Amino acid sequence: MAEAGLDALVCRLPENVLMLSGYWPLIGMSFLIMPAQGRPVVVLPRSEEREAKEELWEAERATYLYGVLGGADPYEAVAAVIVEKLGSDAKRVGFEGGFESVAPPWNAGEPSISAAATLAMLERSVGRHVLVDATDLLYALRARKTGAEQEGIRRASEIAALGLRTFQETADRGRSGVDLVAHVELAVMLRGTGFRGARRVRAFAQVSTGMEETSLAYRPAVVSTLRPLVGGDPAVLELAVVADGFWADRTRSVVVGKPTARQRAAHEAVREAKRAAIARVRPGARAADVDEAARSVMRGAGFEREFLHITGHGLGFRYHEPVPVIAPGATTILEEGMVHSVEPGAYAPDIGGIRLEDDILVTPDGAEILGPCGDDLAPGMPA
Amino acid sequence: MAEAGLDALVCRLPENVLMLSGYWPLIGMSFLIMPAQGRPVVVLPRSEEREAKEELWEAERATYLYGVLGGADPYEAVAAVIVEKLGSDAKRVGFEGGFESVAPPWNAGEPSISAAATLAMLERSVGRHVLVDATDLLYALRARKTGAEQEGIRRASEIAALGLRTFQETADRGRSGVDLVAHVELAVMLRGTGFRGARRVRAFAQVSTGMEETSLAYRPAVVSTLRPLVGGDPAVLELAVVADGFWADRTRSVVVGKPTARQRAAHEAVREAKRAAIARVRPGARAADVDEAARSVMRGAGFEREFLHITGHGLGFRYHEPVPVIAPGATTILEEGMVHSVEPGAYAPDIGGIRLEDDILVTPDGAEILGPCGDDLAPGMPA
Repeated sequence: MAEAGLDALVCRLPENVLMLSGYWPLIGMSFLIMPAQGRPVVVLPRSEEREAKEELWEAERATYLYGVLGGADPYEAVAAVIVEKLGSDAKRVGFEGGFESVAPPWNAGEPSISAAATLAMLERSVGRHVLVDATDLLYALRARKTGAEQEGIRRASEIAALGLRTFQETADRGRSGVDLVAHVELAVMLRGTGFRGARRVRAFAQVSTGMEETSLAYRPAVVSTLRPLVGGDPAVLELAVVADGFWADRTRSVVVGKPTARQRAAHEAVREAKRAAIARVRPGARAADVDEAARSVMRGAGFEREFLHITGHGLGFRYHEPVPVIAPGATTILEEGMVHSVEPGAYAPDIGGIRLEDDILVTPDGAEILGPCGDDLAPGMPA
Repeated sequence: MAEAGLDALVCRLPENVLMLSGYWPLIGMSFLIMPAQGRPVVVLPRSEEREAKEELWEAERATYLYGVLGGADPYEAVAAVIVEKLGSDAKRVGFEGGFESVAPPWNAGEPSISAAATLAMLERSVGRHVLVDATDLLYALRARKTGAEQEGIRRASEIAALGLRTFQETADRGRSGVDLVAHVELAVMLRGTGFRGARRVRAFAQVSTGMEETSLAYRPAVVSTLRPLVGGDPAVLELAVVADGFWADRTRSVVVGKPTARQRAAHEAVREAKRAAIARVRPGARAADVDEAARSVMRGAGFEREFLHITGHGLGFRYHEPVPVIAPGATTILEEGMVHSVEPGAYAPDIGGIRLEDDILVTPDGAEILGPCGDDLAPGMPA
């Protein structure tokens, strides 16, 4: 904050409140005020005080009534704390003005974000001229994960691995994509809640099945169908898991029954590309070189044109984060503590789709695969 | 738009793109440009063209590459269409600057919203001086649902009723709140997908169990636990369901085993309060009078202080909408086509929590309960 010349930060996106205070809000109505000097404070609905008391590690709490009769305007409550904390001295106050993708709060059905009302409240409190978009600073703070953050992401990825295995064990003739999504999400919630102490766990699974659907599985989102799997059908599970605010992003692919020779070749290439990219990860490595490690394997196996997308992206406080991007030409230098996906894939009408995705932590001397899990093409109980 | 003096609207929140075009985006990267004259156009990722082709009912499509190598800046693609559609004549262009709560896209794990990049794109395209926050107009357009919108919400609420019944049939000794959440969400996805043609269905369930947890079930979000239900435990299911972009919001409450006399009395009061409020709903009714119909029942039964919150809120394009609010003092006059919840409840240490919530459509001569479902206190197969 000193480097960025900021006197304070004000955030309300759950991902940033979590990073700066340790508390992952139940709904998106908790505001964090962090002065450059002095303790930060989180202004939150009184109804979340129980959870905040347990999770907040280095911030004061202030509460306001919300969701019950007699409650006042939350923005007034937040404004009062801002004025008290910052006084009339603030010259530059950072806020999260550049987040166009956001992680939902625990109550994922209805995220809350900062728009006109929040901006007006900030302007009333500190004056418009001192507001600064601190998005770059916030992403810079998130780029290298602390030990506790790494542990949160590791646990989320281990829970995600429970979902991947459920998919691998369940994908079979007669099951549909919708059925597989539902059972993977059930398994993650049932077996993930309580896993190494995780309290709030949710999965967002997407399953493509059959040649046509999976050949489109490179899409950022798919629509699962009710069509039952038949022998020879490929199936791709794309799985996001959040556990106490930390995210994992994993993918596995199988073929039910007997894969074709070309599917086997594509799977072998994708698996080897994943291995090669992970082997290239270490502090000091260029992101483009990690991408090229995967891409050159795909090229050598004759699947370069079928590998339609980048090799990976940052993650942890959200499903996808912008640092680092593992892509052709990416000049980012990997640093210890960064977490990113490695997810080569091949998609074509004569293959369907095959993608394998793991979450990787950059360690002092290489890479750790978070939540290791088999990646065979054959469904059934993996080794 | 003429009344609001707008030459055009530009939206990208999935809930508004759905309302104005019929298309519910897979991810939040579809932008709608609606000129006051001429056809609207939706600029969307090429990878969503399949779904958009089927769902878009009165808008042109323009696409850009997204999520694959070789893609350009989405904002440039959107800006080009804005400049082409609006030329240099636009005096006032409305945008969704006031949405601080948002409905997630189909890809609920990572909503996209309009922040600095979108605003900069709009300013580059039409000039800053013509941008107008059109949030009030958008909410006004959403206040009365069209026939097709009513049908979408009705179907979502019928699917939600499948989840309510799963809860009623499943809540039993030995099950935990987490277990009930997982099985309700599984049932909604498995049985809701394909239900009257619904293609994209997801549930967000929250279950409180036991006296202490349910006495806090008035909270906007709860944390379900692994504690097994025992005889005498109350359980409350709060359930959001989205089906092809339309939302339902329902609640049911049960007591496992034998309820106390006070729990039975509270449940009878809540059920009667719900009936009384719904009976008061018709075009021309004051929202405050609908609230008072419920509140007076609670008062008469001695549970006024236990009824901590408002009686209801609008819904349909989102889990919660701001029009109408059914609350003490609310001066809104109900109109045909409005959809809102009716959800009285009672919460106290000696009751636990009991809330019953239905979604109500204001019809020409009264009210329709969308997705009717029994509301007995006893779990087990309802009538």
